[in-house]
Amino acid sequence: MKRIVKLNSPISIISHAAVGGGEERRGPLGDKFDFCDITDRFGMDTFETAEGEMGRIALNTALGKAKLSHKDLELLVAGDLQNQCVGTSLGLNSFGIPFLGVYGACSTCTESLLILSSVMENSPDMTYGAAVTTSHNSAAERQFRTPIEYGGQRAPSAQWTSTAAGAFILGRDEGKPSVTEFMVGKMVDGGTADGSNMGGAMSFAAADTILSYFDESGESPSDFDYIVTGDLGKVGSDILKEILARELPGCERFHLDCGLLLYDSERQDIHSGASGCGTSASVLASHLLPLMETGQINRILLLSTGALMSPSSLLQGQNITGIAPLIRIENKGYKKKNTTVNRK
Amino acid sequence: MKRIVKLNSPISIISHAAVGGGEERRGPLGDKFDFCDITDRFGMDTFETAEGEMGRIALNTALGKAKLSHKDLELLVAGDLQNQCVGTSLGLNSFGIPFLGVYGACSTCTESLLILSSVMENSPDMTYGAAVTTSHNSAAERQFRTPIEYGGQRAPSAQWTSTAAGAFILGRDEGKPSVTEFMVGKMVDGGTADGSNMGGAMSFAAADTILSYFDESGESPSDFDYIVTGDLGKVGSDILKEILARELPGCERFHLDCGLLLYDSERQDIHSGASGCGTSASVLASHLLPLMETGQINRILLLSTGALMSPSSLLQGQNITGIAPLIRIENKGYKKKNTTVNRK
Repeated sequence: MKRIVKLNSPISIISHAAVGGGEERRGPLGDKFDFCDITDRFGMDTFETAEGEMGRIALNTALGKAKLSHKDLELLVAGDLQNQCVGTSLGLNSFGIPFLGVYGACSTCTESLLILSSVMENSPDMTYGAAVTTSHNSAAERQFRTPIEYGGQRAPSAQWTSTAAGAFILGRDEGKPSVTEFMVGKMVDGGTADGSNMGGAMSFAAADTILSYFDESGESPSDFDYIVTGDLGKVGSDILKEILARELPGCERFHLDCGLLLYDSERQDIHSGASGCGTSASVLASHLLPLMETGQINRILLLSTGALMSPSSLLQGQNITGIAPLIRIENKGYKKKNTTVNRK
Repeated sequence: MKRIVKLNSPISIISHAAVGGGEERRGPLGDKFDFCDITDRFGMDTFETAEGEMGRIALNTALGKAKLSHKDLELLVAGDLQNQCVGTSLGLNSFGIPFLGVYGACSTCTESLLILSSVMENSPDMTYGAAVTTSHNSAAERQFRTPIEYGGQRAPSAQWTSTAAGAFILGRDEGKPSVTEFMVGKMVDGGTADGSNMGGAMSFAAADTILSYFDESGESPSDFDYIVTGDLGKVGSDILKEILARELPGCERFHLDCGLLLYDSERQDIHSGASGCGTSASVLASHLLPLMETGQINRILLLSTGALMSPSSLLQGQNITGIAPLIRIENKGYKKKNTTVNRK
């Protein structure tokens, strides 16, 4: 049974934008974000609507870079972490773009790019589509755990939900990095019901997808510049690397985690790294795609990682389920990996 | 700008199952459900896990009818109404099927069939996929409004969230009803922040999609047996019919609403009709598809309708956004409508 889907007419990422809050501005990628509001409020009265506004700014910025209007977009695939994905619908409904809402916890960025690419492949007449992903620290914390005003002490394995948005305009410009393959992830029981260790819970799903991909494709990890996970953080990345080193030795050297790139763990009080679906979205938009566009890297696998749980499921003692969909992004005509890139 | 996507290799619904609770068993379609648990508990300790179990039973039943195992499924697209779609992940994670989670409020059934069809069209090697949608009255009421134990009085315009699941196995059997086209809906501000009038809020989105479809396709409503909405209920259906009668006279005669089919408003205390994403899923599985399989009807448009909102957005005074994706389901080789069917 084949799981890898190849796109015959590769769909390219013609424009992208990253928007963040204060903690993201202070992080090592802060300079690369298109816009940050250090107050995290984006001019809105509530954190929930601030998240919507952040998504709206990200999409407008990406549209502006591509010299397009929202009226040029034929499909929007988007999601967030709020109950009923309301951050997305409140922020983006005024655009009037045909919309598919997705929920994949922190895997939303990859899931939305995957679904958008697939629908565009079916629709040769479709010229432009957009994928938008947002998360907001204050909206997510008070919904999944406790309001930040409560001041609860965080466990060392806990991650910091990013206040970040990534928006991507997809089209058919062969000169831009393209989505050429995808693989849908399986739900994998993370073996823990600890909401403060989501990275650990998600690492097994990431390993499952990565190993399945190389098993089926017959390719080698060294064919890629990076194998990028979404937000495993320190704890989850260590587990993933241990599994990869055992099952596919050498693969672990190509691993990169967006949750470890967004903040500086020495300077910032973020414990095990970043989480939240805005993490991989904003790191892809601010850091990875610019590296591809300038030819510093040419081919990556992106697996945003999601922890499927709710406050009710945690209170009811249910285990966290991990999920890790995969997309392959590459520059056209790229044959061999660029060996001048220094790996971690 | 074209919005209708035609599938070149129509994806067929080879098997389906509907599962419900007590109120659904007592409704006019009760006999047609594959299984109902009149306790609404499905053997589980909580309403949330009961919803997951209901989805699991529905998928297993549909698999059994098709003489397939879950190992034959290459993709699962599913969603529900719980926070973070956890009903789906808890109920279906043990199957180990590659999974895409979607959130479209009560539009999930159509949205999941649309995405699954699209991905299967891209993947000629993919033989079987499944779409599962669930909603549970007690889980949804205590999450969106108040726990049922609170005994709050319901407004006349309020609808009854169905405890129902629909599961669909998609394949490539040309003898079965097939998904031949789809159209993604736009988010339309429903003009109300009243969580007790979701049908009214969604009716404008349904009208927008239906009118856009006939405008672009050039077809006539009479080319279809029914134009089926998800869960507008009495209030929403009346608004939709008024809009259609004005904008596309005659179209309103072909309208059917799953929210008005699931219960008997004379005998059952359900106010304006059924709601919840399980409504259109279970009515499609128990009633509409059997009518198509026996040739009593041959071509329908299905628009499950979603109200995008959350408890927070309602408390913060935000309007409800409506959404209505559309799929066209038809029997192969069908040319003219069957004029022997009595319309409402």
